Amino acid sequence: MPYFDAASAAPLHPVARQALLAALDEGWADPARLYREGRRARLLLDAAREAAAEAVGCRPDELVFTSSGTTAVHAGIAGALSGRRRVGRHLAHSAVEHSSVLHSAAAHEAAGGSCTEVPVDRFGAVDPAAFGGALRADTALACLQSANHEVGTEQPVAEVAALCAEAGVPLLVDAAQSLGWGPVPAGWSLLTASAHKWGGPAGVGLLAVRKGTRFSPQGPAGERESGRAPGFENLPAIVAAAASLRAVRDGAEAEAVRLRALVDRIRGVVAERVPDVEVVGDPVRRLPHLVTFSCLYVDGETLLHELDRREFSVSSGSSCTSSTLTPSHVLKAMGVLSEGNVRVSLPPGTAGADVDRFLEVLPDVVADVRERLGAPVAAPPSPAPAASLVVDALGRRCPIPVIELAKVIGEVAVGATVTVLADDEAARLDIPAWCEMRGQEYVGEEPADRGSAYVVRRLS
Amino acid sequence: MPYFDAASAAPLHPVARQALLAALDEGWADPARLYREGRRARLLLDAAREAAAEAVGCRPDELVFTSSGTTAVHAGIAGALSGRRRVGRHLAHSAVEHSSVLHSAAAHEAAGGSCTEVPVDRFGAVDPAAFGGALRADTALACLQSANHEVGTEQPVAEVAALCAEAGVPLLVDAAQSLGWGPVPAGWSLLTASAHKWGGPAGVGLLAVRKGTRFSPQGPAGERESGRAPGFENLPAIVAAAASLRAVRDGAEAEAVRLRALVDRIRGVVAERVPDVEVVGDPVRRLPHLVTFSCLYVDGETLLHELDRREFSVSSGSSCTSSTLTPSHVLKAMGVLSEGNVRVSLPPGTAGADVDRFLEVLPDVVADVRERLGAPVAAPPSPAPAASLVVDALGRRCPIPVIELAKVIGEVAVGATVTVLADDEAARLDIPAWCEMRGQEYVGEEPADRGSAYVVRRLS
Repeated sequence: MPYFDAASAAPLHPVARQALLAALDEGWADPARLYREGRRARLLLDAAREAAAEAVGCRPDELVFTSSGTTAVHAGIAGALSGRRRVGRHLAHSAVEHSSVLHSAAAHEAAGGSCTEVPVDRFGAVDPAAFGGALRADTALACLQSANHEVGTEQPVAEVAALCAEAGVPLLVDAAQSLGWGPVPAGWSLLTASAHKWGGPAGVGLLAVRKGTRFSPQGPAGERESGRAPGFENLPAIVAAAASLRAVRDGAEAEAVRLRALVDRIRGVVAERVPDVEVVGDPVRRLPHLVTFSCLYVDGETLLHELDRREFSVSSGSSCTSSTLTPSHVLKAMGVLSEGNVRVSLPPGTAGADVDRFLEVLPDVVADVRERLGAPVAAPPSPAPAASLVVDALGRRCPIPVIELAKVIGEVAVGATVTVLADDEAARLDIPAWCEMRGQEYVGEEPADRGSAYVVRRLS
Repeated sequence: MPYFDAASAAPLHPVARQALLAALDEGWADPARLYREGRRARLLLDAAREAAAEAVGCRPDELVFTSSGTTAVHAGIAGALSGRRRVGRHLAHSAVEHSSVLHSAAAHEAAGGSCTEVPVDRFGAVDPAAFGGALRADTALACLQSANHEVGTEQPVAEVAALCAEAGVPLLVDAAQSLGWGPVPAGWSLLTASAHKWGGPAGVGLLAVRKGTRFSPQGPAGERESGRAPGFENLPAIVAAAASLRAVRDGAEAEAVRLRALVDRIRGVVAERVPDVEVVGDPVRRLPHLVTFSCLYVDGETLLHELDRREFSVSSGSSCTSSTLTPSHVLKAMGVLSEGNVRVSLPPGTAGADVDRFLEVLPDVVADVRERLGAPVAAPPSPAPAASLVVDALGRRCPIPVIELAKVIGEVAVGATVTVLADDEAARLDIPAWCEMRGQEYVGEEPADRGSAYVVRRLS
């Protein structure tokens, strides 16, 4: 039963399990107490902090344990913004940050602050110069992930850090996806991470704040973790998190090479054997274990179900697989196709044979889903070119609007247009992406009584 | 090695351990995902929520899991205050709430809100009428613990809940200390608790919000736990928390009877065999497993160390055992002695023989500590009554100011005064408490160049 969604949560590392069991016996007491059970808990907490700090590349007193990567991001952003409130209330961040960053930014704006979202290229990376250009005299904080959680693209952290240093702006790096693979390039002021991404248990995040960074913890005061993470320390889990970080790092270099080759194989075979597919993200500057692709004319939820039936667990940024019915903000910012989206993220130790089996199964699964949806299998016949056409896909969900477009494009004359009426959010992203993949011209979007009218001109 | 500090953290319950191990294998994946590992995690999460809701006495959709009791309190208070912001910004709470409530109240005041602290009697309980009197037209929320964490006194929750209902004010009950022993009396609108207090793992708290209670979650938005607890669910620990809550509840009634008898024995023997001791808290309306007493002329930290050397783990609300060097706010609000303070809280399963051994050891340990500090062993001789005296205890820490006072009180004539100059915070509480215990008159406190001057009149 191959599990290919390590970017959501990795199965517990054996070292984490072992450390957790030991710490359940030795580390359940309150580390703030003076009696022996408390002192023992304190020793375990101190040792875990030292191990984690070493892996992060900071001093132990710069690092606190939070209850998750999300709370680390929330606390880090709120504390840094407040610490530099006198400088200004501007926050700069990339358009493809994790939702915990975007939600913090939205809360900051709701409270009267201002934000600049730095766009990304088609691979999902920010341009360092553009990021530098977003820094202003009143910028209190900049946020940039080390690598993207949906498409794996590495961000130019070192270059952006240098520009931030020049501008005197602290940089928070969300290292949730990369910390298990290696340290973040120097230059960050704040760093956050999440243990269950590297095989540690749930319930543990990291927040490191470099000495000298102005920081003012928000929310009710707390006595624990330097006042930066409220509540009783989740100690056995913290011990397990630190132990497994050290363990995965030991094997990370070799495993990265191996998984990178497996991902290269996926990238190649998918592009070759699945028709009408877009493999997204940077093919080189990327996480070793993660690849994402989108399949035209495919319903993401059905695709995931079919893969699950064949025992492959993957995730998707398609709108139909999210509770909000909007496509992933990452794919949107990249301007790439979102329909039939699949993210494969291999946990360390993934067998090559499992990847091979996935690659054998995938083309047929995609073909089956397309057939069921009535997707065009080849260029449609064009017996008598019609004048411009209007397709009504109102009330129909992704990928139907694109399928309907593809079905009729051959029916209009070269130079004529097809107008698709659609009210599914994904159409806004997927119709232009389809045009780019198919070499047709995306003319633009016009308001309509219901939804929008997307106009496409046939070029070939 | 008897551990008598269950009120800080209870050792992991065997059922919690077993459930945790199973859930580490079955429940590590993201419960929001559609594949089988995610669905399995979702089933575990749903089952844990149902079990916890049953124990709390609410609907599953009224209950979310937080990362600790403290974060449950923070989120509960912030959300309820914000939800009723149009009604007003007044918060009423007892003076002896857990620090998480007091810190939330302080943050609320810092943000422009107002708070009323309802005082407690010498047993540590609020008077329902006084609590009711603190409710105003602009009161957005009232907070009352089910039972006190330092002295074990049960609060009149049902009576206060009725008054809150009458006034249309939601009541948040912090049930951290009592939930393992039984459900909270009906009438609450919000309820919080902490799993590691009942033998569950660290990293799990509960927040229940009754349907119909206005609630607006604060901080950055989140997709998990109804938007009320940010971050990836700490699932294996949640499963263990729910399983152990059910398990401890099964045996709670019988165990409460047994521990209540052991605590009664401690209360009796301590009062009888330790001279100059004050056993605090309500002797009847109290938690079954907890008792606190304070010993005159004793340094709390030394006492804890000596008990630890004899393998008894207890905690203390004395100022010298806290990092802030102020005595516990609970003892302060009760107006009882804080020096030489010891809290004994018995975990379920505590052997009677261990309690007996503690009671054998304690009197000698207290006597030893007193002897080392030069405390008066009997009424001091009074050869030639002096006029009023001034004792300079500046720069000297608790219990020295009280010891110095006790040494010289016999040297002044009946009706004359002793003035103690002291700058240790605990003196403000302990000198009046000593007067009450000794039948002397506490005249009052006067400002001094350094610290304060505490004036005591000899009556006998």
